[in-house]
Amino acid sequence: MTGAATRARVPATSALRAIQAPVSERLEDVVAEMRRVVTADLPLIEQVSGHLLQMQGKMFRPTLALLASETTESPQPRVVTLAAAVELMHLASLVHDDSVDHSALRRGLPTVNSLFSHQVSVIMGDFLYSRALEALVAMEDLDLLRVLTSVSTQLTIGEMRQLAAVDALSFDEADYDALIQAKTASLLSAACETGAMCGAAPHRLALKRYGERLGMAFQVADDILDYTETASVTGKPSGLDLREHKVTLPLIAALPRLSAKDRQRIDALFAADAPGDDQIAEAIALVTDAGGIASAQIRGEQFAHEAEEALDGLPDTPARTALAGAIIYVMHRRS
Amino acid sequence: MTGAATRARVPATSALRAIQAPVSERLEDVVAEMRRVVTADLPLIEQVSGHLLQMQGKMFRPTLALLASETTESPQPRVVTLAAAVELMHLASLVHDDSVDHSALRRGLPTVNSLFSHQVSVIMGDFLYSRALEALVAMEDLDLLRVLTSVSTQLTIGEMRQLAAVDALSFDEADYDALIQAKTASLLSAACETGAMCGAAPHRLALKRYGERLGMAFQVADDILDYTETASVTGKPSGLDLREHKVTLPLIAALPRLSAKDRQRIDALFAADAPGDDQIAEAIALVTDAGGIASAQIRGEQFAHEAEEALDGLPDTPARTALAGAIIYVMHRRS
Repeated sequence: MTGAATRARVPATSALRAIQAPVSERLEDVVAEMRRVVTADLPLIEQVSGHLLQMQGKMFRPTLALLASETTESPQPRVVTLAAAVELMHLASLVHDDSVDHSALRRGLPTVNSLFSHQVSVIMGDFLYSRALEALVAMEDLDLLRVLTSVSTQLTIGEMRQLAAVDALSFDEADYDALIQAKTASLLSAACETGAMCGAAPHRLALKRYGERLGMAFQVADDILDYTETASVTGKPSGLDLREHKVTLPLIAALPRLSAKDRQRIDALFAADAPGDDQIAEAIALVTDAGGIASAQIRGEQFAHEAEEALDGLPDTPARTALAGAIIYVMHRRS
Repeated sequence: MTGAATRARVPATSALRAIQAPVSERLEDVVAEMRRVVTADLPLIEQVSGHLLQMQGKMFRPTLALLASETTESPQPRVVTLAAAVELMHLASLVHDDSVDHSALRRGLPTVNSLFSHQVSVIMGDFLYSRALEALVAMEDLDLLRVLTSVSTQLTIGEMRQLAAVDALSFDEADYDALIQAKTASLLSAACETGAMCGAAPHRLALKRYGERLGMAFQVADDILDYTETASVTGKPSGLDLREHKVTLPLIAALPRLSAKDRQRIDALFAADAPGDDQIAEAIALVTDAGGIASAQIRGEQFAHEAEEALDGLPDTPARTALAGAIIYVMHRRS
């Protein structure tokens, strides 16, 4: 426990804490490593970095990388740097996403674009990504670099797919799968794959597959929450995706089952620049009644099941148990 | 000359053409390689890439990389990929700079942010940078990656330095040197250094030094042009830097020599949100009369001289002659 007093605390719900238990000390090393990597001799960078590290999220990707490296109980110490770089890549993409979406809040705190400026968020995202890469290059492992630079391209392609969706309602399930693969599953998969490359190499492909399926389940669950989770203030589902004209699986599943009249109501919502609360509530009811949410849940469970199957060949270690727990966590989280 | 018919033409002024002569065929291969690297199976990316390749600049950084690799007349073919990656990194940083500055034009064509959107420019910059890195990783040379990821961090720190300059008029020559080192000299230096690593390894340090001093001279010359070059429409210097409250070397050199009254005029310009044309013209006259431009010219010539000295130990090859020519080109270019 040496140095524990100076370690940053990683916040977590109890379900997440159980998954993180086998790697909790190392996770705190990851936070310290992130802090080291983003240090720069410029007050503005220090301010923004400080803010970002303070809004630290659930550290889900580093947790997966650490657990993957532990599946044969012989993790390599370098996995700490790897996990820090993966989280910084994630953070860089969030900073740019918030800038692109003009989002004001992230994890309950002001985004970089709202607290500082649009300018600072663009350059800060570049800085985080660039520093993450420097840390990876210092690990001197071209295989790790190959996996992670390829993923960062996929993340940008995912974002571009979203921006390119001019006729959103023609988006079908194959488009949706390609989108969530690129924007979410690719990095979760890479976290597991590169984690495996730091101590559990024989299980690299299995863990890559696990992470990829987990990522698909993760994003489907997220997209369902947008239809079902009631906001604390209004007591109604936020329907934020509908408001922003984002077409996700519940709507894709519901569309072919709608009557011509109901379909017109959805078309009207997507034609409105700023749809009203009543329009959103009505669309949520239509999608729910047409079985869109139930269909999406079934698809999410398929992905979850495939993630579980991918763990079949792994040795029975605490890390494997935690990875199985991560599937349940993903399917049942509320935020 | 096989394949020359399908090669893209690289536009150039005659002075630039002379510098590019020893590597002109290879430069066309670089353009083809850039095209290959940025291809993606998504129409929006193809559109933006097409636009960016069409506005292709002077290819100055690839030219330097190719010349550096040729200084011992044994360039490695892989320098083509290296040079393409360096230019794509440069392009990525321009796309983000234009987005940050809300610039409407670049190289006489609409910027990505003005032709598409702010969103597209942020993500497209990420895409270009990420693809450049993938191409570098595929070269399987950790030394190259070390140099270039470190430079990309410096580019972001340079941009941050510019954004962080809240009290611009307290900016001194040391701050200015640190800024232009980070935002300009670092990449020119890396282009020469990594070019040398592809065929002229014994001259790596000399070419790194050459590129760094050339980059400093390049930026000083650029900053002087802003005070001296008359715009084609108005017939007056643009004074764009002053308009945007950017403090560059001519002003830094002039400030301590101004009378209290003249200094107040400069302070007023920097206090005005949108300084008028008269204010700009007056400031340019004050800076010129105080010898600010002459001082900056002397400093630029020092940098140019240091770049020349760095070439001393190189063998007498056409590439070396062209690198010496590049110094003169940098000092005398008009755009």
